Amino acid sequence: MPTIVVEVMPKAELLDPQGKAVAGALARLGKSEFTGVRIGKRFELTVDGPVDEALLAEVREIAEDLLANTVIEDVVSVHQADVETVAAGETH
Amino acid sequence: MPTIVVEVMPKAELLDPQGKAVAGALARLGKSEFTGVRIGKRFELTVDGPVDEALLAEVREIAEDLLANTVIEDVVSVHQADVETVAAGETH
Repeated sequence: MPTIVVEVMPKAELLDPQGKAVAGALARLGKSEFTGVRIGKRFELTVDGPVDEALLAEVREIAEDLLANTVIEDVVSVHQADVETVAAGETH
Repeated sequence: MPTIVVEVMPKAELLDPQGKAVAGALARLGKSEFTGVRIGKRFELTVDGPVDEALLAEVREIAEDLLANTVIEDVVSVHQADVETVAAGETH
């Protein structure tokens, strides 16, 4: 079944304490090449039927209205998933 | 600064109550074209220096060991971010 991926991140100007904690953990582990970590959300919406531009536009609207809290988050991407990256547990 | 994106999703065989709640909300709003929603995480790691295959391999290891709880989650993707999708709030 086709899947649409919506990616939501905390706004750049806001603190992200969860991300800061991970960045601190990486630094303590000696991985000093990472200067920052931010943590957002990734939604997978499975769709019954074909994905066209109209549906993607609807999902963009849903993302702004429902999935993201636009006071503190930005929708950074809405796109159809590559088949192989969905629920396959594949690292690529 | 280059950014590496790590995407983590709950394993396909596990329930995702948060996703189920969103799917229920979409159905109640009459958006019946969506048959399921799953919610995972998206990490952005900013890197001081160039991104090469060795660094990506290191991030894959970090993703499995630190960022994902591999008992209940899969790392679905580790890749360098396109410049324009990072913290720009752009919907594409």
